Amino acid sequence: MSAYEEAKARVRAVDERTADEARARHDRLTKPQGALGRLEDLGVQLAAIAGEVPPPVPAPAAVAVFAADHGVVEEGVTPWPQEVTAQMVANFAAGGAAINVLARQMGASVTVVDVGVATDLATVGIRDASALRSHRVRNGTANLAREPAMSDDDARAALDVGAAIARDLVDGGARALVTGEMGIGNTTAAAAIVAAVTGRPARDVTGRGTGIDDVGLHRKIDVVDHAVGRIPSGATPQRVLAEVGGLEIAALAGFVVGGAAARVPVVVDGLIAGAALLIAVADCADVLGHVVAGHRSQEPGATAVLEHLGLAPVLDLELRLGEGSGACLALGPLEAAARILREMATFDDVGIDRGPDG
Amino acid sequence: MSAYEEAKARVRAVDERTADEARARHDRLTKPQGALGRLEDLGVQLAAIAGEVPPPVPAPAAVAVFAADHGVVEEGVTPWPQEVTAQMVANFAAGGAAINVLARQMGASVTVVDVGVATDLATVGIRDASALRSHRVRNGTANLAREPAMSDDDARAALDVGAAIARDLVDGGARALVTGEMGIGNTTAAAAIVAAVTGRPARDVTGRGTGIDDVGLHRKIDVVDHAVGRIPSGATPQRVLAEVGGLEIAALAGFVVGGAAARVPVVVDGLIAGAALLIAVADCADVLGHVVAGHRSQEPGATAVLEHLGLAPVLDLELRLGEGSGACLALGPLEAAARILREMATFDDVGIDRGPDG
Repeated sequence: MSAYEEAKARVRAVDERTADEARARHDRLTKPQGALGRLEDLGVQLAAIAGEVPPPVPAPAAVAVFAADHGVVEEGVTPWPQEVTAQMVANFAAGGAAINVLARQMGASVTVVDVGVATDLATVGIRDASALRSHRVRNGTANLAREPAMSDDDARAALDVGAAIARDLVDGGARALVTGEMGIGNTTAAAAIVAAVTGRPARDVTGRGTGIDDVGLHRKIDVVDHAVGRIPSGATPQRVLAEVGGLEIAALAGFVVGGAAARVPVVVDGLIAGAALLIAVADCADVLGHVVAGHRSQEPGATAVLEHLGLAPVLDLELRLGEGSGACLALGPLEAAARILREMATFDDVGIDRGPDG
Repeated sequence: MSAYEEAKARVRAVDERTADEARARHDRLTKPQGALGRLEDLGVQLAAIAGEVPPPVPAPAAVAVFAADHGVVEEGVTPWPQEVTAQMVANFAAGGAAINVLARQMGASVTVVDVGVATDLATVGIRDASALRSHRVRNGTANLAREPAMSDDDARAALDVGAAIARDLVDGGARALVTGEMGIGNTTAAAAIVAAVTGRPARDVTGRGTGIDDVGLHRKIDVVDHAVGRIPSGATPQRVLAEVGGLEIAALAGFVVGGAAARVPVVVDGLIAGAALLIAVADCADVLGHVVAGHRSQEPGATAVLEHLGLAPVLDLELRLGEGSGACLALGPLEAAARILREMATFDDVGIDRGPDG
């Protein structure tokens, strides 16, 4: 069985009985009931994922940055040249990108995975090859505006890469996973997936990505609209992925499923990871309970994903970078949620009457 | 000169020229312009406070939890008995409260300051006296519903306590300060300050605190309304503080001014710290540039403070605990903001053309 199918077979629903135990413990801690708001919800979720109260601290975390290119850049959907994907891979490998800075602060590792970059990475002078894993399925996707982005076999291969990386990182000691990505043009593919899975019109889920003007935005919406129109109703999630997706998006979907199979929280970032999450949940619904939405991206498609799946993001810092940056910042509150359940005194410990609330 | 007046005399406006340098540096970093959203704003502010680009990392931080009691509890404005203030002081000193857990995670110290608790702390069996500083100005305030909460001299003494603690913590190595507090009944005093300074009606700025029912809320609004009605128009900030404030609120106002005098960022928590901030800014406008609003409290008065001062909070995790918990969680993004400016590669470093944005 492939890494992805094996992971999918191991995913179980999170444990609602443990969630109830965590809620009951919160009500015994030295604070008014519910006064820690979202931290309490996160603590309950961590307990349900692990099947333990208090839950383990979700640290260290591991960020996987999946990088790939997109043939759709031919359509002028982004102002950045395709070479920037490879240049940023080199920047990740050298530790100079935003996600490297944020991960260092959080004590998280960063694993950069070439799952389909179009450029020869020798040309960008990667300094530290140990920081890069080469699992290139193909040199970027085909132009999804004109033909399927990739074959079903390619999509499956990329799903396997993501699932295998998740398993490796957890085997290596990671206690939380963070979804990161880089791929010039990938907001177009992600918007197409969001439109296809949620049924919303292209104009409602397509945004400016890292910065295009009005003319470019209209072109991008047309591309998404036409590509989604090719997908027959009732298409499987993997068919949607192959038709309009991307290799890093497929790998992220596999990564989310792999994290859920390993029973660790998976903190997802913005639009690209959101599109991958839609595919993962459509293919394996029990994944969802293992997922924490790290940050509310500025992209309209990201909000469509959150609404479709009923997720509320932890942070809203107006980031629109990707790379996993927003999700990485959410590791602080997530760790706090576990520590609150583990370390706070109870009313009984300190001899306080719980008052009329308790 | 008193500690407060000395601090006030040392406060300078933050450096707008350094802020511009920080903005220019952000635009050279390997990301689309503005893509780090609020982190970029915070980085600019940290640079302006320190007068340096990149700014120093605002760590380690120090949380000061000022504790005091409120005579207004006689009016039935809270469901909790007054003894809980002292019991929670013991909990802080023993390390079992939420703020202790969060501060440990952030590598921040917690200093608990008795500035006006009503109960003899010997009765609550404080285990570690080194974690508590005794600067009790008086055994709680008078009932602000019937008379001034304290004398002008008492208010000045509490302002001095806060300013002196800020100076001590920065002298001891703190590179950011976090406002914490505990005081059964203190949301009533804080709401009264907010109403008095912002001019908003009591019903718009008075909330349920840690949990009262509808009847209690109406009583609380009446108390605030009548107390604020005693304050003559044109009253000085210190007069407002003495008439309707609290000892921990006065200490927090002094603490904010002390932090600004020492040119470190001061991360403020919810309603109580917000009321103290209103007093501090009314008395010394240049304080404001040194302040970071850590968290959007659920209390309506807290939102009134943010709007009055034009502040946007870093986090909204639906906390309603106080203690400095929301502000402490904001230390993660604040530290990230400094590290981004210090550690990220520039486009020139990695040889990427900045694209049409850059």
